[in-house]
Amino acid sequence: LSEKYESLDYEIIDNELYRTEETSSDHQKQLFRLSLNRWVVCFLIGIVTGVVAAFIDILVYYSAQVKFHVVLNNLINICDKSKLKESGCAWVVLSAWAIYNCILVGIGAALVLFVSPVAAGSGIPQIKCFLNGVQIPGVVRLKTLFAKAIGVSCSVAGGLAAGKEGPMIHSGAVIAAGISQGRCLTFPIDFNVFRYFRNDREKRDFVSAGAAAGVAAAFGAPIGGVLFSLEEGASFWNQASTWRMFFSAMISSFTVSSLLSVFYGQSGMLSWNGLANFGVFENNSYNIWEIPFFLLIGVLGGVFGAFFNYLNVHLTKFRKHYVRTTFQKFFECILVAVTSAFVGFITLFLVDDCQPMGVDPNLTEATKLWCPKGKYSAVANLFFQNPEESVKSLFHSPFNAFHPTTLLIFAVEYFLLTLWTFGLNVSSGVFIPTLLTGAAWGRLVGVMAERMFPSLTGIDPGKYALAGAAAQLGGVARMTISLTAIIVEATKDITFGLPIMLVLMITKFVGDLFNEGLYDSHIEIAEIPFLDWNAPKLCRNILAKKIMRRDVVALEPIENVSRLVDILLTTRHHGFPIVDRISEPSPGSLFPNYGHLKGLLLRSQLFVILRKRHFTHDYDGRHPVEGAKPVALSDFSDSYPRYEVPISRLNLSTTDLKCYVDLRPFLHQSPHRVPLNASLGSIFTLFRGLGLRFLCAVDDENRLRGFITRKDIARFK
Amino acid sequence: LSEKYESLDYEIIDNELYRTEETSSDHQKQLFRLSLNRWVVCFLIGIVTGVVAAFIDILVYYSAQVKFHVVLNNLINICDKSKLKESGCAWVVLSAWAIYNCILVGIGAALVLFVSPVAAGSGIPQIKCFLNGVQIPGVVRLKTLFAKAIGVSCSVAGGLAAGKEGPMIHSGAVIAAGISQGRCLTFPIDFNVFRYFRNDREKRDFVSAGAAAGVAAAFGAPIGGVLFSLEEGASFWNQASTWRMFFSAMISSFTVSSLLSVFYGQSGMLSWNGLANFGVFENNSYNIWEIPFFLLIGVLGGVFGAFFNYLNVHLTKFRKHYVRTTFQKFFECILVAVTSAFVGFITLFLVDDCQPMGVDPNLTEATKLWCPKGKYSAVANLFFQNPEESVKSLFHSPFNAFHPTTLLIFAVEYFLLTLWTFGLNVSSGVFIPTLLTGAAWGRLVGVMAERMFPSLTGIDPGKYALAGAAAQLGGVARMTISLTAIIVEATKDITFGLPIMLVLMITKFVGDLFNEGLYDSHIEIAEIPFLDWNAPKLCRNILAKKIMRRDVVALEPIENVSRLVDILLTTRHHGFPIVDRISEPSPGSLFPNYGHLKGLLLRSQLFVILRKRHFTHDYDGRHPVEGAKPVALSDFSDSYPRYEVPISRLNLSTTDLKCYVDLRPFLHQSPHRVPLNASLGSIFTLFRGLGLRFLCAVDDENRLRGFITRKDIARFK
Ligand SMILES: Nc1ncnc2c1ncn2[C@@H]1O[C@H](COP(=O)(O)OP(=O)(O)OP(=O)(O)O)[C@@H](O)[C@H]1O
Ligand SMILES: Nc1ncnc2c1ncn2[C@@H]1O[C@H](COP(=O)(O)OP(=O)(O)OP(=O)(O)O)[C@@H](O)[C@H]1O
Ligand SMILES: [Mg+2]
Ligand SMILES: [Mg+2]
Repeated sequence: LSEKYESLDYEIIDNELYRTEETSSDHQKQLFRLSLNRWVVCFLIGIVTGVVAAFIDILVYYSAQVKFHVVLNNLINICDKSKLKESGCAWVVLSAWAIYNCILVGIGAALVLFVSPVAAGSGIPQIKCFLNGVQIPGVVRLKTLFAKAIGVSCSVAGGLAAGKEGPMIHSGAVIAAGISQGRCLTFPIDFNVFRYFRNDREKRDFVSAGAAAGVAAAFGAPIGGVLFSLEEGASFWNQASTWRMFFSAMISSFTVSSLLSVFYGQSGMLSWNGLANFGVFENNSYNIWEIPFFLLIGVLGGVFGAFFNYLNVHLTKFRKHYVRTTFQKFFECILVAVTSAFVGFITLFLVDDCQPMGVDPNLTEATKLWCPKGKYSAVANLFFQNPEESVKSLFHSPFNAFHPTTLLIFAVEYFLLTLWTFGLNVSSGVFIPTLLTGAAWGRLVGVMAERMFPSLTGIDPGKYALAGAAAQLGGVARMTISLTAIIVEATKDITFGLPIMLVLMITKFVGDLFNEGLYDSHIEIAEIPFLDWNAPKLCRNILAKKIMRRDVVALEPIENVSRLVDILLTTRHHGFPIVDRISEPSPGSLFPNYGHLKGLLLRSQLFVILRKRHFTHDYDGRHPVEGAKPVALSDFSDSYPRYEVPISRLNLSTTDLKCYVDLRPFLHQSPHRVPLNASLGSIFTLFRGLGLRFLCAVDDENRLRGFITRKDIARFK
Repeated sequence: LSEKYESLDYEIIDNELYRTEETSSDHQKQLFRLSLNRWVVCFLIGIVTGVVAAFIDILVYYSAQVKFHVVLNNLINICDKSKLKESGCAWVVLSAWAIYNCILVGIGAALVLFVSPVAAGSGIPQIKCFLNGVQIPGVVRLKTLFAKAIGVSCSVAGGLAAGKEGPMIHSGAVIAAGISQGRCLTFPIDFNVFRYFRNDREKRDFVSAGAAAGVAAAFGAPIGGVLFSLEEGASFWNQASTWRMFFSAMISSFTVSSLLSVFYGQSGMLSWNGLANFGVFENNSYNIWEIPFFLLIGVLGGVFGAFFNYLNVHLTKFRKHYVRTTFQKFFECILVAVTSAFVGFITLFLVDDCQPMGVDPNLTEATKLWCPKGKYSAVANLFFQNPEESVKSLFHSPFNAFHPTTLLIFAVEYFLLTLWTFGLNVSSGVFIPTLLTGAAWGRLVGVMAERMFPSLTGIDPGKYALAGAAAQLGGVARMTISLTAIIVEATKDITFGLPIMLVLMITKFVGDLFNEGLYDSHIEIAEIPFLDWNAPKLCRNILAKKIMRRDVVALEPIENVSRLVDILLTTRHHGFPIVDRISEPSPGSLFPNYGHLKGLLLRSQLFVILRKRHFTHDYDGRHPVEGAKPVALSDFSDSYPRYEVPISRLNLSTTDLKCYVDLRPFLHQSPHRVPLNASLGSIFTLFRGLGLRFLCAVDDENRLRGFITRKDIARFK
């Protein structure tokens, strides 16, 4: 496992300070203010996430306008007028198109490479890890949001096989973290609000609300958003916090749909839209004999999804080895942009799928391109639109709007493009491209079914497209409950929920036979200490004494400053057990003899204490040094999350180093402990169920014998 | 807290037997079989729950047929023919109607009083407790299902203000428990299947799936069902088990809608219906200026709901004191049945709301009663229909289908009837009657809004009825996320989700200012040791040493049989800590000196061990007694859940009593322990997060000092 990632502290530090806080007279009032402010923060998260989503959408809209009207149509007109030869004209258009795309993708790539590397990709694996309890450096910083929001607009507008939905989830999470902390580290602004939310525990809860708000904004799916946050992250189900998550999600989808309805000139229409609007099925009934087809689609989705993951994992490993320099990374992005542009045009020339204008009544502004008069190009309709619009056409176009060959070629090409795009150093989601791929082959299955069984009437290929989309996404992401809810909400159609569920179920089952979900694979490749839902299969006979580290760096309740400084300088551990006495190793043993377990202290606390110079000259604590300041609970939240400072900056004199620190008021009084013969299974349950970071292993007399961290557990698969 | 209720064992007993099981060669295969069988069981739960739901629905349908055709219409015809005086005829009809109702309600009451008292009411509080970790005696027995299913059909058909939806949830839970155990205790049948699911842990997981299936069957709301189970019960969110819950829910709603579509002669139509079918809104948009009205409805719902709960709690307390004998209870049921019948008729005579036949196009078979030709009685349409049908008319009838006076009177009367009915000794749910009350006053609000602001066009009172229904139910039950999902799914309409959420949010907020939800109040009245979501507010300075019991009954690893027998005879404790040595109290102490904590043993395990006569003549365990049998892991699941037998039935001779038992292979090796200064907050988190039943309090040297059970924690509010 990589050393880059540290865990989050989810546990409450139950020390004397924390206990005396309760005895203060306005404690009840403060609790009330806290719970009220949680709602305020969730409200703001919803609003801001909605605004950011609308902003991204509008950016993409304008750049698409530029692209289609200025670049494409104008050029074609000019070409037509100047009577260039057809192929020559095509080349001009193609080049302009490709250059435009490259510029946008270049900006997106630059943002990722130079501003915030963690903004690459969809951000879902990172958020998953964060909710699981792992701090990914920089994942919830403001600059990441900036790189993400602008970057994803660029990559979508730049014609990559990318969606803006996954990144919305990450954006929501950043917004949540930012608002709940009331300040920003990128620019040193501190609003001095919500200071009591400055700890990992609260932040993590808000981030799950932010992720839910992100999903809600992306798909107009508040229930789906909540389920997403729960399925992908939370290990606890707490009614109150879930309800707040729901609130954020609802506000955010309300905000985004209000803003977009104003922008698109239909203000007041409060129907329920996110960024991805899949339209409404006119007729949503299905027949029992269609179920086998859906099952087939499920199986196909599982296989294709697993294949996608397999290839993408290998591609990612390849990239890790061979695409290392910034230049190489940048170049790869541009290469993909050019390829994506070319693929569309080449298909346009190869497949001659011109459909008469009237076939699809939904099409208002169809792309004629080089089709004869009165016809439009079905291929262009797939390739040169917004991906969301393409999904919509696949769902709702009438039966013969697309030629089967078009569908097949499109599905294959888009599959490959998506494959190549995911993992690139640009912000880009995999949801929409996957849905689009699936919709294409799903529709193909529908058309085929109709041709093979002409006696079956009433097959609507749009529904098969929907099932295919769900299947492909399910096969790739292996999400289940949340995906069902998202699709049901995004299509605003509950009747069709059952087949969707069936499809997703089969898909997950089939996919799991081959490999893990895409996000999980990426988490594994990144060597992040992620804790799964359940303990590893064979866990009953792996005992604590085998898991634990024996060379524990422990502290005594009253410690010498120089020893503390020494420990901080020489170790990178984030938690230190406190024992009543540490004595010389007994003969034959390598490790010191630790006394009885008394508590636990975090590295971050040590820094705060040292900075406050909470020292005394004598061991008994009667003679404080000059300038010693009392340490209050708020000091810990004030220096969150950047506790660590170079020791030299603490200005500790040699007399200081000889002083003592009484750690007792700060230590967590009842750290969790297990006997040496506890099994991995029960230890895992403890870590997962309580969100632990550290666990002490003690012997029969409660003497410390070892130390177990989250990472020590995550090692077992 | 009442002594009647014991806790469930959710923790895995991590003992030697359990550990050696893993080393067996076919362990992997067995794990696979286990996980496969979980799916099979969930599938069966879904099917059977669906069938039971359909069965109840069909029963109610037929008895309604009998009632309306045979009793009502025939009698009216006969009256008309025999030219009785009008009032006389009315009396004949009324009496026949009331008698018919009384007979049915009498049957329902008898089932509850004589077969299964726990089948009374909706069963939701009981299931909530079960999922929370409390065993309510008899709650998942087959006879309860029987009493519930027949009983609820009787009470609904008997014209009580009762719904069949709440009881469906209970039924689903019983079905789940029954199927997962593969046997039945009411009739001693043992199918010898799924024997490894015979423990509290698995049972509880299946019961949550069953509850979800029940909701899904009742409202056609699988997502709502899953959310219900999570919101009301589960403290853990586990992806795999949630996904299985979802599967059960989906299968059950599929089954019930298939069966009912066949029964009602529309087979093949697989749309998504449960028992409560609220119809589809034709036009589901709303305007931004309607939001304040919805907020108003939310506030009203909170107030009315809190008022309902207040009154019902007092009624329940009154009942607890004054309605005690079986006869009194039976008589009260009959009284309510008669009153319910009368109320309808009286309203019919008082309010003269006859509407022309064409007003409501949905009405195919309207009740004319004593209205003039070409008109139908709107009052009768509310009172004498299935409650579900009445809800539907309130939602979908055109603007002037009901006179405001009718709505007002109906809302008040139904409010009172529901109030009186809930808590009666019949199976009856509170969902539908509450929805109906709310729909009536919600519709009234809509009509009023239209009258007061005639400039506002486009008010559809049906939507206000929906909002009112949600508000009233939300105010009573204080459910939030799950209720939103249920209503959205039951109306098959996502667009309307936002206002519903808003309404429910306000409702819960307003209601919580006054009192708790109805179910929680009933749980409190019953003195059930229910653990809330969060620790009590002031919990940081209540320490383990204050919570724990000091007079622990503990065991040594090798015990004398006579001591074990003695303990089983003299105590009712269900768990015993094991310490390495118990010695005489030190001077000045009241309690023995317990040694170091070694493990934990359950009462149930002791019984199995004694029954197997796993004794040795000597302390060292070298000379087993004749007839001593080895104890295997399966012995514990085989005697589940009835471990306890009278000690005399164990046939222990006096030599037996002098023998020793080695308890070490059976004891849980790493029971959870906390130091004496652990705070209630952290102890609560442990119990809630891990589903604990017992916790040991140890001193600094790991010597046992006290014992804490779930009940000790639940005492703190
Ligand atoms: N106080 C300590 N004394 C000795 N070993 C420790 C101590 N803390 C952690 N370790 C060990 O160091 C190794 C790396 O630890 P890890 O990075 O997980 O610890 P951490 O940085 O303190 O916590 P985390 O990374 O979870 O934030 C692990 O094997 C762990 O057991
Ligand atoms: N082994 C024991 N020794 C002493 N006191 C005990 C023991 N077990 C339980 N108690 C105490 O008995 C009281 C009633 O216990 P309770 O009914 O909760 O225990 P139980 O029946 O063993 O568990 P449960 O009711 O949760 O199934 C509590 O105060 C508890 O602390
Ligand atoms: Mg580390
Ligand atoms: Mg008890």
